[in-house]
Amino acid sequence: MSASAQAQKDYEILHKKSRYSRLLSGITALLDWDQETYMPVAASDIRAEQLKVLAGLIHKSKTSTAFAKALSKLIDLKTGKIKNKDLTTPQKAAVEVWRKDYLKEKCLPAAFVEEFAKTTSQSVVAWRTAKAQDTFHTFSPYLEKLIYMNRKKADLLGYEEHPYDALLDLYEPGATTKEVGIIFQSLQKSVTDLLKKIKSVKQIDDSFLFGKFDHHKQLEFAHVLMKEIGYDSSKGRLDISTHPFSSASHPTDSRITTRIHPTSVLSNILVVLHECGHALYEMGLPEEQYGSPLGESISLGLHESQSRWWETRIGLSRPFWDHFLPLLKKTFPQQLDKISIDHFHRAINKVEPSLIRVEADEVTYSLHVILRFELEKALIEGSLSVHEIPEAWNAKMQKLLELTPENNREGCLQDIHWSMGAFGYFPTYTLGNLYASHLFASFEKEHNDWQKRVAKGELLFIKEWLNKNVHHYGRQYNSKELLKHVTKKDFNADVFNSYLHNKYKEIYRIK
Amino acid sequence: MSASAQAQKDYEILHKKSRYSRLLSGITALLDWDQETYMPVAASDIRAEQLKVLAGLIHKSKTSTAFAKALSKLIDLKTGKIKNKDLTTPQKAAVEVWRKDYLKEKCLPAAFVEEFAKTTSQSVVAWRTAKAQDTFHTFSPYLEKLIYMNRKKADLLGYEEHPYDALLDLYEPGATTKEVGIIFQSLQKSVTDLLKKIKSVKQIDDSFLFGKFDHHKQLEFAHVLMKEIGYDSSKGRLDISTHPFSSASHPTDSRITTRIHPTSVLSNILVVLHECGHALYEMGLPEEQYGSPLGESISLGLHESQSRWWETRIGLSRPFWDHFLPLLKKTFPQQLDKISIDHFHRAINKVEPSLIRVEADEVTYSLHVILRFELEKALIEGSLSVHEIPEAWNAKMQKLLELTPENNREGCLQDIHWSMGAFGYFPTYTLGNLYASHLFASFEKEHNDWQKRVAKGELLFIKEWLNKNVHHYGRQYNSKELLKHVTKKDFNADVFNSYLHNKYKEIYRIK
Repeated sequence: MSASAQAQKDYEILHKKSRYSRLLSGITALLDWDQETYMPVAASDIRAEQLKVLAGLIHKSKTSTAFAKALSKLIDLKTGKIKNKDLTTPQKAAVEVWRKDYLKEKCLPAAFVEEFAKTTSQSVVAWRTAKAQDTFHTFSPYLEKLIYMNRKKADLLGYEEHPYDALLDLYEPGATTKEVGIIFQSLQKSVTDLLKKIKSVKQIDDSFLFGKFDHHKQLEFAHVLMKEIGYDSSKGRLDISTHPFSSASHPTDSRITTRIHPTSVLSNILVVLHECGHALYEMGLPEEQYGSPLGESISLGLHESQSRWWETRIGLSRPFWDHFLPLLKKTFPQQLDKISIDHFHRAINKVEPSLIRVEADEVTYSLHVILRFELEKALIEGSLSVHEIPEAWNAKMQKLLELTPENNREGCLQDIHWSMGAFGYFPTYTLGNLYASHLFASFEKEHNDWQKRVAKGELLFIKEWLNKNVHHYGRQYNSKELLKHVTKKDFNADVFNSYLHNKYKEIYRIK
Repeated sequence: MSASAQAQKDYEILHKKSRYSRLLSGITALLDWDQETYMPVAASDIRAEQLKVLAGLIHKSKTSTAFAKALSKLIDLKTGKIKNKDLTTPQKAAVEVWRKDYLKEKCLPAAFVEEFAKTTSQSVVAWRTAKAQDTFHTFSPYLEKLIYMNRKKADLLGYEEHPYDALLDLYEPGATTKEVGIIFQSLQKSVTDLLKKIKSVKQIDDSFLFGKFDHHKQLEFAHVLMKEIGYDSSKGRLDISTHPFSSASHPTDSRITTRIHPTSVLSNILVVLHECGHALYEMGLPEEQYGSPLGESISLGLHESQSRWWETRIGLSRPFWDHFLPLLKKTFPQQLDKISIDHFHRAINKVEPSLIRVEADEVTYSLHVILRFELEKALIEGSLSVHEIPEAWNAKMQKLLELTPENNREGCLQDIHWSMGAFGYFPTYTLGNLYASHLFASFEKEHNDWQKRVAKGELLFIKEWLNKNVHHYGRQYNSKELLKHVTKKDFNADVFNSYLHNKYKEIYRIK
């Protein structure tokens, strides 16, 4: 066998082993999806056990001697030196990622991984009840355990400066607390400045966006949107859940959920575009690479760049509504018939500090994330206790957004993430916005007529651009490498900042 | 440690190991459920792979050296002699069942089990398409493979007289082709006689049961039924699927599905009662025994006795409708307002040979099963080829029911079972009817006022009787042992035959 053929054979063996654990994590994705959509309430205990078993099996498979052996044929596990030069460039990148993932996974004992999975499954259920009944104290014991376990996880994974680094790295490989802190600081300043300017001019009236909007019709409209932007409904579906999400079992099984807001017509639309953005990423991954890093999304930040792309860059744009407003008016003639496209476009872009992150406008959104980042950092380093969260939350809310929630449902109980044991996740939301801006600049350069085309209802080329420039690479690049590869520029927060300032000066007619 | 404490400890270890594979098979149940209800169509290939992985893991766990070692502390694997006398009687029974299951599982190589799981998952999808498009030829390659694999399975499992024995034993432990053949023969004669008598008198007009019945209202009515007979909706749910089924993941997660017939109002009602019967059995199994034979249902025949109990013995009874007809009339006043309870009760019990098994009346039902039993036997022994099925089906249909289907959708493509690789399954449907009759005789003796109570809407005591007399034993007894234990009588077909004759002579006013 030639060296090259041997390399391909070894690579195939490794891929097959890796594919096995990916199949199991796809099953986990289905169980999670079911837990949030259709699972009978009394089944939560057994579901937690099922998830624990799966987590154990996945961990076992990812850290098995057989896997390590297959991997070490292609790369030196200690030094990271590629052993076989006959691999292709993407394959070399994949092997490096496999190694990093393996070393990370190896840090965590099986019992810890299983216990973590079981605890989070139970905690999600406890959170849902606590949120419904506004009883932070019924959730706090779970939260204490989860923070304890996250601290332990950080210790197990290791870190140089801050334990939070280890957690961040799980969701956004390479990101550090320090770097994120610097970006967030400049962002906070920029956003606060912009917010001040916006507050100084006349507020936009968006009252027509609120009222009674038939749920069934809202869902019908969502299905049209999904189809037109390129969501393939033979490979996914739309359901309802408390906290909307997208579920990534496989490129042929990428489901999304939404929730219907009791009064807002916009909420479901933006949620669906957002979750579709995630799902299109998953659907756009190369199927033949399923189970290898080349068939995986890069990071949560990059994932979020895709969802925010569709939600904000497309879904809040004028041409998008040039095309869709007539249909929305036809769906809800009574409520929207008299609204001009200009008024509609300004109204959906209204900026106003509010309590709920997922309903925040583009400008204030980052402040919600900064709040969570700061609290998480404090919780993980131990400078904040769980029982102090409600007070700390409200104080930060007042400082950043000049608002105080009336209850914890609208405060520290609003998000599902902590109950999922996900600390270090929130920052990726804002990073996603920044990434999206970078990518969008390149898209605009390549398609300087995008606005015209979108206004005419031509939408599929957007997905195709993302397929080609982002999705199909899998994890051949990390976030910053991909941005550099696509945009030829280094990553920084300025692109996003100036986009926000330019856009909202126009929306608010600020001179 | 005392001998008794040691026995309990060893038993606990065994139970824990067994529980692990039960958790995995519960996950399989969820994946199957999803496949039939909500799975996106394009996801079928990856689902097949997921099911294959799970089947492999379950098989591995059930046949592991660790499991065998734990088991052999309590029972001699070769001789079946209980080693530790300090186990309780139910525990001894459980250990014996564990051994039998283990020896059976050990006969099948892992690769075979995995391939079987993958093939059946793909075949179900192929069957669904073939049924929808009436293209037997697109399904027949799958069927050929499945029959081949079932023959192989029979060889691997071993049998004394007929390869079909080995398959029957999977669904109804202890049953043999010969014994079933004898029972079916006597049944066929008895049913044919009764049918002749019925055909000689005036047919009942049941036309009011057909027409347009709002789907949503049908489902609402189903939910009321479910609740009143004791289905705990915190532990299950009702969904729609092509082929209705109940899904047994855990006593706290026992879902059912139904289908809404385009014209019949009765179909959904009987389906829901039927599937509830299955689910109530699962929900009635002792939770603390989950994962041990004492937390499992006895056999498919016994399972079917539970579903047929609710569908036919309760759901087609006069007192049940004394109670529910007013609500059904309220739900569909236009269609049912003028119908008397007497007419209604006779109409729902109308006997008429028909093409579709699941919609067959109580009298002709067994003939459908006999047809399948005879075909399966021939397919497995190799005296019938797959391409001959449509013709053979139609010929038998003509012989047994004097009808010929116009297409294969109403003929040999109607059932999902073969696509699931389930040969030897159908006979359990008729055995279930016979078992139900035996059990019902005891129930009637203990509750001779059951008709009065049910007519008043008192229903929960039925479920409670089944919980106490059937469900809570798990697999402490096999089918016939349980029947003997409950009824104090040996099993035979006469109880069912005389029930049928008595009931339908009255319904048809035959002297």
